[in-house]
Amino acid sequence: MDIRQRKRIGVIGGSRAGQEALRAAREVGRLVARRGGVVVCGGLSGVMEAASRGAKEEGGLTLGILPGNRPGEANPYIDLPVATGLGYTRNSLVAMNADVLVAVDGEYGTLSEIAYGLIYGRRVIGLGTWEISGVEAAASAEQAVESAFKER
Amino acid sequence: MDIRQRKRIGVIGGSRAGQEALRAAREVGRLVARRGGVVVCGGLSGVMEAASRGAKEEGGLTLGILPGNRPGEANPYIDLPVATGLGYTRNSLVAMNADVLVAVDGEYGTLSEIAYGLIYGRRVIGLGTWEISGVEAAASAEQAVESAFKER
Amino acid sequence: MDIRQRKRIGVIGGSRAGQEALRAAREVGRLVARRGGVVVCGGLSGVMEAASRGAKEEGGLTLGILPGNRPGEANPYIDLPVATGLGYTRNSLVAMNADVLVAVDGEYGTLSEIAYGLIYGRRVIGLGTWEISGVEAAASAEQAVESAFKER
Amino acid sequence: MDIRQRKRIGVIGGSRAGQEALRAAREVGRLVARRGGVVVCGGLSGVMEAASRGAKEEGGLTLGILPGNRPGEANPYIDLPVATGLGYTRNSLVAMNADVLVAVDGEYGTLSEIAYGLIYGRRVIGLGTWEISGVEAAASAEQAVESAFKER
Repeated sequence: MDIRQRKRIGVIGGSRAGQEALRAAREVGRLVARRGGVVVCGGLSGVMEAASRGAKEEGGLTLGILPGNRPGEANPYIDLPVATGLGYTRNSLVAMNADVLVAVDGEYGTLSEIAYGLIYGRRVIGLGTWEISGVEAAASAEQAVESAFKER
Repeated sequence: MDIRQRKRIGVIGGSRAGQEALRAAREVGRLVARRGGVVVCGGLSGVMEAASRGAKEEGGLTLGILPGNRPGEANPYIDLPVATGLGYTRNSLVAMNADVLVAVDGEYGTLSEIAYGLIYGRRVIGLGTWEISGVEAAASAEQAVESAFKER
Repeated sequence: MDIRQRKRIGVIGGSRAGQEALRAAREVGRLVARRGGVVVCGGLSGVMEAASRGAKEEGGLTLGILPGNRPGEANPYIDLPVATGLGYTRNSLVAMNADVLVAVDGEYGTLSEIAYGLIYGRRVIGLGTWEISGVEAAASAEQAVESAFKER
Repeated sequence: MDIRQRKRIGVIGGSRAGQEALRAAREVGRLVARRGGVVVCGGLSGVMEAASRGAKEEGGLTLGILPGNRPGEANPYIDLPVATGLGYTRNSLVAMNADVLVAVDGEYGTLSEIAYGLIYGRRVIGLGTWEISGVEAAASAEQAVESAFKER
């Protein structure tokens, strides 16, 4: 399938996360890959790494939009690291490059990405994350990914 | 007083806002200027313009960090427009350049600026804005500005 | 071959270019793809499109780092468009994400990318482009790509 | 005089520079300030600091657009530091915020700023700097500043 046609699912969440959030993110990554989606994330550790790892376990493709200026700083499950040198300011670009966002857990960085998703008119699906008006809550990784692939 | 030593107060809020929010923002601008602070904002309309206008009414100084690439697009109350060409991504820079933030009303753009304020370890004082853990609610413009100038 | 291990060759040049430059860029794209490299470029028209097209003719992979905020604005030969919303400021990111740069023709935008390549310590190989100290001149697309894949 | 109406002169050049370049940059800063212009620069050391110092010696105003994310990293002669957190990518913003640019000496960073000045349609006046088509060479600080304030 043409890479360009594949739906891009942004998976956002903290670089540090508990076991439950990491399991959920990995499952989200797996399910996105099985449906032929590309996982877009911030390219670092925690939820980003778990989602990328899940995607690679299912033969998926992963795009990591990094805060630093060296592509090599991406986690090992990122196929295409894109360095930005923008620091946290790159959060805006993660949202900009996803067709839909799935937020898993997360702190203020994730909150900024949720805000950008909503600014850019993307649907944002939440899994145990910030309760913000406009975010669609999901009860499980399955439900989140199913919802992410639905056309609205 | 040396410009460099003046406290910088970021005033964030929507480019469209109701009368009450605009009045509050203008009052925040006035009070910041009376205390010798510099108003830092996004340089456009709505809450940004009201706060800048208030500051200029009291002889204050205003710095506007713009989304577009032309300094001339700033509202007429901005002394020093800084064009970024970053679009909404510039929200991060507004937070980065304030010592303390006062959020007045606002939508998703303001939410992203609140998030960045908290990411960068700035105090964020809220006036009728998003209720986010970490934001200190104030009951009036006076209270917000008094709090903003307190050392913590 | 693991995508992450593939050498990334930045192909830079103007969005408008003459026939000779377009032919050279397309040939550079073809040769990069045959050697298993990824073409990184600014994602738009002219030299960027010619290089991407050449790469796709040989089954290569292309990454386009766009000035605008919509991934869809990439030329049709870009597999992975990355929107930045940075305008011309994104030129820095094109250089940052290439292991080596090949400059074909070009105007001031290309000059900025050459400068960033040299700032970031990348080798920059020139094909009928700006003569800047530090740029290695090549006589043909073949020579440029051969040089780009050499370890220095 | 209204700050907003003052002409903004970007002074660009290396963070390390020889005595002659530093003297020229300081003189440029002095002359810009005497004519009521604002010195815009990258806010750090070398040519940037010399130009800011010259401007402050004549009671001028200085705006420093910094690569890092802390306003405090500006040199002591910057009145209004603007942190960007963009690293070298901020060079584009220095050019964007000047009405005219004066380039003094400089290496690849300066070359990128010259390129951005020309991309944005700004006049670029050169004092012992890169010889690039479009840059107007000046023989002295006096001549450079006189030329910078001429309407074209």
